[in-house]
Amino acid sequence: MAFLSVLTPVFVAVLCVMIGLIFINSRKTDRVPRPETKGGSKVESRPWVDQDLQDDTEITPRDEDDDWADSNEEEDLPHVPYSPPRYPVERMLERSQDFYSVMNQRRSVRFISSEPVPRDVIDNVIRTAGTAPSGAHTEPWTFVVVSDPETKHQIRLIVEEEEEVNYRQRMGDKWVNDLARLRTNWIKEYLDVAPYLLLIFKQTYGILPNGKKKTHYYNEISVSISCGILLAALQNVGLVTVTSTPLNCGPQLRLLLKRPANEKLLMLLPVGYPASDATVPDLKRKPLDDIIVRV
Amino acid sequence: MAFLSVLTPVFVAVLCVMIGLIFINSRKTDRVPRPETKGGSKVESRPWVDQDLQDDTEITPRDEDDDWADSNEEEDLPHVPYSPPRYPVERMLERSQDFYSVMNQRRSVRFISSEPVPRDVIDNVIRTAGTAPSGAHTEPWTFVVVSDPETKHQIRLIVEEEEEVNYRQRMGDKWVNDLARLRTNWIKEYLDVAPYLLLIFKQTYGILPNGKKKTHYYNEISVSISCGILLAALQNVGLVTVTSTPLNCGPQLRLLLKRPANEKLLMLLPVGYPASDATVPDLKRKPLDDIIVRV
Repeated sequence: MAFLSVLTPVFVAVLCVMIGLIFINSRKTDRVPRPETKGGSKVESRPWVDQDLQDDTEITPRDEDDDWADSNEEEDLPHVPYSPPRYPVERMLERSQDFYSVMNQRRSVRFISSEPVPRDVIDNVIRTAGTAPSGAHTEPWTFVVVSDPETKHQIRLIVEEEEEVNYRQRMGDKWVNDLARLRTNWIKEYLDVAPYLLLIFKQTYGILPNGKKKTHYYNEISVSISCGILLAALQNVGLVTVTSTPLNCGPQLRLLLKRPANEKLLMLLPVGYPASDATVPDLKRKPLDDIIVRV
Repeated sequence: MAFLSVLTPVFVAVLCVMIGLIFINSRKTDRVPRPETKGGSKVESRPWVDQDLQDDTEITPRDEDDDWADSNEEEDLPHVPYSPPRYPVERMLERSQDFYSVMNQRRSVRFISSEPVPRDVIDNVIRTAGTAPSGAHTEPWTFVVVSDPETKHQIRLIVEEEEEVNYRQRMGDKWVNDLARLRTNWIKEYLDVAPYLLLIFKQTYGILPNGKKKTHYYNEISVSISCGILLAALQNVGLVTVTSTPLNCGPQLRLLLKRPANEKLLMLLPVGYPASDATVPDLKRKPLDDIIVRV
């Protein structure tokens, strides 16, 4: 007991350190951004939902762009009549079938021809991507179109360096001697060969006239929707690409392309005609009944 | 000192509790999913990148689906020749212009006609959405097509309840007496009126044959791309919608529609013909030069 009492000041000191650590720890937890709140905005805890209903899509900023047509910016604008083309039922069916047929031929293709592609076609494809809806009509996308051979090669070096680390680390001992096989995986020749590389950046925030940042909610979803429309536009003209999300190369590629800090790389698409000997894996798509639920 | 030595066992006890708390706290921190790693997968710290290059897109799972055509599943499949239709340059230009013209007429429309829409057209639209690429070809989407009036009404009640809370809370005192104006915002008549409501769920993980969970990386991006193609398919047949992301209603709507726990609501799209007196805000889109960067 006498021995313990000598140690009491030590315990007090340790106790102080512990309390400090807990404090730091709890602050760290607060600072880890949660899914759907990348802007680090205030999140309200909502009492209405039962705990067992909670899931990770629950914690989300409450903002005016939940319904993308409902933003305050739009409310202040005058409304104009809207009457898009109306097709007879038979024509609708035909158009829906034709578009499906075109899109169903789309495949991710890594064997891309070096043949040049008209720049005006690429411009129209990007114009089309720019028609996508976006949260509060922020249009939070930048499409960087790279045709300069030296820049394409720099991009290839950055992506391949990353991929090599990736393949070596994750494959580990099992594959360490099988370099020939590995090589085919991290080498991305198409990054040199394709006439265009499209690097699609999401703008995570905008800059207001007063210099303050304005968070772009749903910027990733918006830009991904835009990419879907872009893929449709490419397929419509007979060009091919492969969807890649080289997120770990983002900052290096952003610096290479001199994009500002509010832009983050979302996708990298090599674009061109398919090579004459292009092949694709013999994949099947799920049938309609596996993806649709009728209520 | 004697007083303190009496308290020593208390300090020891407190110390144990503190250590326990720190342990729990640090585990909690680990369990908070980071952006881009919603599946809570292992994240490697990467030493190669300078601290000042770090941004929130950096921390991402290293997995085989960085390049969406590179998955191991695909590697094991036989390759088949791929030769999509090839158009002459003039025809490409024409097709790219025509598709842009169609898509550029798309607007988010909240005034939807109750007129019935052929179910086969909706089926083709969803088939088309199902042609989207996805990380490791997981096809992580479920399209719930609601035409049952009672279910549509239940959906409306859930969404409006959320919206009302939202509007009341965020607008606060400034608008508290202006209920007439508020009312126009949280009332979503189109949820009853539109012949179809499409609720698009992302499958955050799959179930392997052995019963274990398989994280679907990039499921949100994949499903958003699919939604972009879906919006293109709707526009192509002259139907309208408004893109909404009612994430706070997700769990209630998921239970209403009896979807499993691995599915999270990403979007809700009311679909139909535009009402004869439909209007849209007089928005402009950014010109090409504001969204494209040529290198």
